[in-house]
Amino acid sequence: MEGVHQLKKDYPWTQTPLVVSAPMRLIALADMAVEVSKAGGLGFISSGTDTSTLAHELQAATSLLQHCTLPTESDTLPLGIGFINWSADLATALPLIRKYRPAAVWFFAPSSLSSLQEWTAQTRAASPHTKIWIQIGSVREALDAVSHAAPDVLVVQGTDAGGHGLARGASLFTLLPEVHDALCQQQAAQSTSSSMPVLAAAGGITEGRGAAAALTLGAAALVLGTRFLAAPEARISHGYRAAILSAVDGGQCTVRTNVYDKLRGTTGWAATHNARGVINRSYSDAVAGMSEDENKRAYEREVEKGDDGWGVEGRMTTYAGSGVGLIKTVQPAGEIVREVREGARGVVEGMYSWSAKEKG
Amino acid sequence: MEGVHQLKKDYPWTQTPLVVSAPMRLIALADMAVEVSKAGGLGFISSGTDTSTLAHELQAATSLLQHCTLPTESDTLPLGIGFINWSADLATALPLIRKYRPAAVWFFAPSSLSSLQEWTAQTRAASPHTKIWIQIGSVREALDAVSHAAPDVLVVQGTDAGGHGLARGASLFTLLPEVHDALCQQQAAQSTSSSMPVLAAAGGITEGRGAAAALTLGAAALVLGTRFLAAPEARISHGYRAAILSAVDGGQCTVRTNVYDKLRGTTGWAATHNARGVINRSYSDAVAGMSEDENKRAYEREVEKGDDGWGVEGRMTTYAGSGVGLIKTVQPAGEIVREVREGARGVVEGMYSWSAKEKG
Repeated sequence: MEGVHQLKKDYPWTQTPLVVSAPMRLIALADMAVEVSKAGGLGFISSGTDTSTLAHELQAATSLLQHCTLPTESDTLPLGIGFINWSADLATALPLIRKYRPAAVWFFAPSSLSSLQEWTAQTRAASPHTKIWIQIGSVREALDAVSHAAPDVLVVQGTDAGGHGLARGASLFTLLPEVHDALCQQQAAQSTSSSMPVLAAAGGITEGRGAAAALTLGAAALVLGTRFLAAPEARISHGYRAAILSAVDGGQCTVRTNVYDKLRGTTGWAATHNARGVINRSYSDAVAGMSEDENKRAYEREVEKGDDGWGVEGRMTTYAGSGVGLIKTVQPAGEIVREVREGARGVVEGMYSWSAKEKG
Repeated sequence: MEGVHQLKKDYPWTQTPLVVSAPMRLIALADMAVEVSKAGGLGFISSGTDTSTLAHELQAATSLLQHCTLPTESDTLPLGIGFINWSADLATALPLIRKYRPAAVWFFAPSSLSSLQEWTAQTRAASPHTKIWIQIGSVREALDAVSHAAPDVLVVQGTDAGGHGLARGASLFTLLPEVHDALCQQQAAQSTSSSMPVLAAAGGITEGRGAAAALTLGAAALVLGTRFLAAPEARISHGYRAAILSAVDGGQCTVRTNVYDKLRGTTGWAATHNARGVINRSYSDAVAGMSEDENKRAYEREVEKGDDGWGVEGRMTTYAGSGVGLIKTVQPAGEIVREVREGARGVVEGMYSWSAKEKG
């Protein structure tokens, strides 16, 4: 449980264990982030593809938070901003970070380690109390991030995650402990006095059991993405949400692929990355050999169907993690935060009573 | 912790939480299974591809157990036998099951549900006290196995596992809870009085943290494969073991593929299955476009190198799970059992003290 006290100190309005909403591109905006933070979690606003809508979202969040009195560290804004670094614009982002002073920024998929270093240094200069979160998907990425950017929090993303991440990888089951041990070793070898980053876990956490398992594996904060798609605050269409609620057998009904990026014209992701989404006709046609052009035309016709274009027989992209089969109901974001937090506590306590009884 | 008491009743020589060694083909034989059971775990002997060496291994195990007094249920043999059902021969297996009465049999990858049903019924007829374990990798497979064969234990295998399993899947993080919930629902719908199978977890458990996480997610028994490759009792070459000990960043250095099956001439696996192994030159050459014939010839030349044929630059197959990066030392199988069991308990207790302190 290393890191728990640091989190409580850095985000004093939050409760333990810290539940975090992931900065899902186009989906996690001011409404969701504010509700998550108000419930004692930490909400992230996605900066979008190119940072162009970020100013508007930060203004909206500030208004929504106006009558709340969430205690923050050094008067920061009690939420975070997430960037997809290879596509985000540092020059647009910096004045906003300086003006709004978010409690945290979350960096993901930089074009290079030197770019990551630059984003980190400039952010720290613009807003010294803003904490740096960096998302990684392998032990190598973890070691590189720590040695180049010394983040406050390392978001360890397992391969169950929905949306983008490393194409090849391990789940949190093995990735979290291996990252933890490798960082300890790196620190011992460098004999520096710099503190270990706090570990946050992302990828496959949907409710109390997964949250407790992530704590067990060494995480101090719990990041959920897919689960928040079922919150009314998520900026998604009814069709998308319905596809999330109806999906079952999450490991079978989702797949990691770059097919959806291609059809939607999302170019720019490195070949090392792809994204997990619900298998639909776009994917099965691609696997069956349909040309990209034809598949793209079919996708574009489907867009016109609106909500009916989603689902297994549809072609609209339903990014979702392998935990999607556990999501059955629409719930406000704040309620999700509370349920996951209390669920995790309940599982931990239940485990202990069992263990104590076994011991006799 | 449902199932824990059932396990203690069915395998009275074991200790809680139950640590199980997986029936790894050609690798997990009498030596390993006996040492695991002697340490209070449950060891499985792999029946091999075609059951032809099984009689010899069971005889060897019986001799090794001769001076042990492990208390068993109805005088069964205190270990299990694992079958790869599509390739195993029921007619050869049955007399051995009848004669040796193993505490458990483990079925995996049957050619059909009716074949699974037949194996189960015949095994129960031949040895009524032998418990039936069935390995599954999806919610669908779990529901089918339970409704067709009513196993005593369902081995839920997540996609981090080494060796063979479903090509597509989720990790234990999401698969275990979704299987659990789906079985509860199925049982409620059928309003039968039949009891839920006990859930065992396989795939990614390497040490105490993963073991505790699996318990947290609803498993009552913990199956380890890859970790036992580092035990001297594993029937593998020095080269294989060295490749296990030197592997790092398990999600990056391993991959699920059918390339290794092709090169080794292991035919017969359904297209739904493949296997996770350490990435080596066979795999990278296949990805780079080398023809199967040429790759196979290169593999066959490599076989002659003996131990030097393993490793990242080699071509010998190193099946391993994504937890391989956590394995650093050679340890006797019995010591692994004790360390994982005590490690899991320690993690559970540590979690609780934290939780209690947080509560104030």
